[in-house]
Amino acid sequence: MECQPVPVRLVIIGGVAGGATAAARARRLSEDADIVLVERGAEVSFANCGLPYHVGGEIADRRRLLVQTRTGLAERFRLDIRTRTEAVALDAAARRVRLRDLATGREYEEPYDALLLSPGAAPVRPPLPGIEHPRILTLRNLSDMDRIKAVVDAGAPQTLIVGGGFIGLEMAENLRRRGTAVTLVELLPQVLPPLDAEMATPVQEELARNGVQVLLGDAVTGFADEDGRVRATLRSGATLAADLVVLAVGVRPDTGLAQSAGLRLTPRGAIVVDDRMQTSNPHIYAVGDAVEVGDPVLGDRVFVPLAGPANRQARIAVDNIFGRSARFRGTQGTSIVRVFGVVAAATGASEKRLKATGRPYRKVYIVPNQHAAYFPGAQPMILKLLFTPDDGRVLGAQIVGGEGVDKRIDVLALAIQARLTVTDLAEAELAYAPQFGSAKDPVNMAGFVAANVLSGDDEVIYAEELDEARRDRYTIVDVREPGEHAAARIPGAHLIPLGELRDRWGEIPRDKPIVVHCAAGQRAYYACRFLRQRGVPCRNLSGGLRVYRCVFPRGVEPAAGAVPAPATGRCG
Amino acid sequence: MECQPVPVRLVIIGGVAGGATAAARARRLSEDADIVLVERGAEVSFANCGLPYHVGGEIADRRRLLVQTRTGLAERFRLDIRTRTEAVALDAAARRVRLRDLATGREYEEPYDALLLSPGAAPVRPPLPGIEHPRILTLRNLSDMDRIKAVVDAGAPQTLIVGGGFIGLEMAENLRRRGTAVTLVELLPQVLPPLDAEMATPVQEELARNGVQVLLGDAVTGFADEDGRVRATLRSGATLAADLVVLAVGVRPDTGLAQSAGLRLTPRGAIVVDDRMQTSNPHIYAVGDAVEVGDPVLGDRVFVPLAGPANRQARIAVDNIFGRSARFRGTQGTSIVRVFGVVAAATGASEKRLKATGRPYRKVYIVPNQHAAYFPGAQPMILKLLFTPDDGRVLGAQIVGGEGVDKRIDVLALAIQARLTVTDLAEAELAYAPQFGSAKDPVNMAGFVAANVLSGDDEVIYAEELDEARRDRYTIVDVREPGEHAAARIPGAHLIPLGELRDRWGEIPRDKPIVVHCAAGQRAYYACRFLRQRGVPCRNLSGGLRVYRCVFPRGVEPAAGAVPAPATGRCG
Repeated sequence: MECQPVPVRLVIIGGVAGGATAAARARRLSEDADIVLVERGAEVSFANCGLPYHVGGEIADRRRLLVQTRTGLAERFRLDIRTRTEAVALDAAARRVRLRDLATGREYEEPYDALLLSPGAAPVRPPLPGIEHPRILTLRNLSDMDRIKAVVDAGAPQTLIVGGGFIGLEMAENLRRRGTAVTLVELLPQVLPPLDAEMATPVQEELARNGVQVLLGDAVTGFADEDGRVRATLRSGATLAADLVVLAVGVRPDTGLAQSAGLRLTPRGAIVVDDRMQTSNPHIYAVGDAVEVGDPVLGDRVFVPLAGPANRQARIAVDNIFGRSARFRGTQGTSIVRVFGVVAAATGASEKRLKATGRPYRKVYIVPNQHAAYFPGAQPMILKLLFTPDDGRVLGAQIVGGEGVDKRIDVLALAIQARLTVTDLAEAELAYAPQFGSAKDPVNMAGFVAANVLSGDDEVIYAEELDEARRDRYTIVDVREPGEHAAARIPGAHLIPLGELRDRWGEIPRDKPIVVHCAAGQRAYYACRFLRQRGVPCRNLSGGLRVYRCVFPRGVEPAAGAVPAPATGRCG
Repeated sequence: MECQPVPVRLVIIGGVAGGATAAARARRLSEDADIVLVERGAEVSFANCGLPYHVGGEIADRRRLLVQTRTGLAERFRLDIRTRTEAVALDAAARRVRLRDLATGREYEEPYDALLLSPGAAPVRPPLPGIEHPRILTLRNLSDMDRIKAVVDAGAPQTLIVGGGFIGLEMAENLRRRGTAVTLVELLPQVLPPLDAEMATPVQEELARNGVQVLLGDAVTGFADEDGRVRATLRSGATLAADLVVLAVGVRPDTGLAQSAGLRLTPRGAIVVDDRMQTSNPHIYAVGDAVEVGDPVLGDRVFVPLAGPANRQARIAVDNIFGRSARFRGTQGTSIVRVFGVVAAATGASEKRLKATGRPYRKVYIVPNQHAAYFPGAQPMILKLLFTPDDGRVLGAQIVGGEGVDKRIDVLALAIQARLTVTDLAEAELAYAPQFGSAKDPVNMAGFVAANVLSGDDEVIYAEELDEARRDRYTIVDVREPGEHAAARIPGAHLIPLGELRDRWGEIPRDKPIVVHCAAGQRAYYACRFLRQRGVPCRNLSGGLRVYRCVFPRGVEPAAGAVPAPATGRCG
């Protein structure tokens, strides 16, 4: 028989992800605690990441989204669940929270020994003219989803999505699935802000291929009613009529309650917690999309609303509430999204964050297949790896492709967590059968290539250094085959196929620094190894023409080459 | 300009996997070296892991199996490739290898500065009566494959496979694909020896479901000709007629040459190398399926013929040959196989190896879905995790299921490489979107459950402790729902659904130790948490009825329950 923890009265505000996990964990730790779970909406523990797919119909049965029903959860864990109940005030000194029953309007006070805030984050509704139009909707919970779906069910031939983040893209796919015309406006010059811009290019091309009109670097300046529809005016001057507008321009921590109680907040309004998930008040803990957490890669504090970390934070907060010791290690921002046939994923630091924080880094791009090329269904992915220039510690990774992207981002996420180096990636022993990988897995290949860069065996240059203004400073040698060169090439590149290089290297002009490129970087590496051993310095274009096209989608000739390339390109 | 390595004459014996990789790497390190690649067969660098799939037709075009052609490889890396050439003698003192041109029979000597042996391993042909029958074939190279395929193409209504390892199972699948009847005989009481027996059960059930007759614990004692067909006699006394027999009873290092040169071999006949891949002769290196390497988990030496390690060893050997310093970290045995619709994978130490070496360990089983249950296509896998009892370091993992098995085995393989603990798995930040995972990924869940076992929060018992002889020592409580209990139950188990436990726990007899079980272990964990807080000691059956059925496929009642369960079972 084990010793009983001190009975407590635990009140949890917010019954989705973190809140529901916390309540279940609390009951497992204490059979005698009073556990009150307060939720503003009608349901607890629903699958918020599934909402767009019920709109689109891929999750046909709405009940699938109710991971646990209110009754099931209450019975299994003996919880006092109060849905449609809002926490309206918090007296931290007296340890009482004021609740309002939304059905009756009745307000009452609830005492607690410990309070866990899991309020989540609310979609931002920018204060634009006309924003209150009833067809301008956001997506956070089941009711929001029902509203959007009702509009689409009733017939919405033209829809407008504002924001190109995860929710915006998932809604774009699902609205297209419903047959509506979709325009997506994004303020930034790229979709998917967690990715670096060049890695978002294949996603943008996939959106275009699937009939989504993507307007980058533009913004809505106002809305107006037009016979019940919405007319949106853009900063660029264009106007768009839409039967439905989905606002997905980000979320903001839902921390009014925390603020009213005097809890410490960050300048951006997130709740400050320590690594035990404790707020500035020792009886109040907070988890999920409302808190700021540490970034274990860069060491700073970040606001990263993701379901996985929210669940782990909840477990850690409850452990600490019940006298155990547990610490949250921070959030490295591992995320993934499927956009039509393309999968994009990221973990750790992006290049733009490394630049913004002034950290030294190196990077490589590779374009491997997800499994053995000789087995049917092989399909390339573009993998970007960021690492420290001294010891090669992995800092971040981004991958865009199809099948197998999720596997490699998870392996690389764990590599970052374990503080592994690119040499460790090269030596990783991963599972190989022709259906699942290669004897040299993409993770190994990334490690090999990065280690070659660190050792100086492979001197690389990056596509962005070959923009129109600087391209002429280099002699560019294309070592692909004539057919490949004819189909798409960097303007001014000299063709010498790899197989002819040993005979023809004397042809290469030596008046400028030499850049060698191929389709994805491998043949050019071989070429550079040869040239450098012959005394000819040269640099390999990392990721080859495939990544060059991601950086400069219109930078190749002939003009036909400017047509969007396949989302992913064959490894060369 | 970089400094040139000393020119060498490098001779490589064996042109598949390791040998071809080594030749390419050598050329990248030295443009001036003479590189001779000697291969007994007609082709170098073919996809040996793809051979069964050309027999079955999934890889329809034979040319896909030629990863690099002889000409392509020779041109790209300026190699002196000699196919259909056998190394017949080795004078290590004089640094000369004697080669025989198999077409002409001409023999000649080839000097070397460094010799790399990559001879591979040859299929074992046990000295059974009648073994020389022309319809008894093995599968190692393209010619072997062609012979097998020719027999099947000509019509082979009945086939016999001897051996239930990777090649045996892949051939079983591919011969069934061709419509032949397949019987598979395996000496051990299980297929797939790298797995523990209970984890092989779903694979055996999948073979049966797909019409493969599997005879475990039996062996062929002899063959006889019967009108051109083969009649095999088994130890059990049965006889079987077959139009084709595929022998897949293991491989043996192909080290006659090494032996003749006096290189140090292991008692099992593998070449002894250090972690630089150097043999007992400083001018001779060896890699691949012919060498014994270190096991980084258990610290002993192992013979693990796998393509991934062979490729990495080749790179390391060549680096050392050319004056760089590189060390091989050993092989932890990460492997995977698809058998019809089931995927089985393993990494690190198995339970049987831990037992055989007397190492202390703990284990847990979980039965998670590969992605969010609310998204279409969710499918369970059985995951077994082995870890140290003191600090929870991950020692090994085995997974059987469908989609997503490959991802989790790779993440766990890297966890072993990085010497992570089960707590690290619990805290791993992996990518979650409903198509790819769950907010609590199977890897996290394995970490949570294992950490609960280590902390004592979850006291587990294993199915093997509930065999017929010992089952009566326990009061077994089934906390599933009545319908689940009616469909399949452990004989003698008392039904108290989890939702009724708080009211009915007084009914549980207290005269014997209590075991609680559910479908997969989660509800039983909740039940045990409750009971133990009420002063009732109890143990949770790890992996629940799903794993119990893997250990005792005929151990449930009613008899209908003895029908093979689905390959993977719903998580409970």
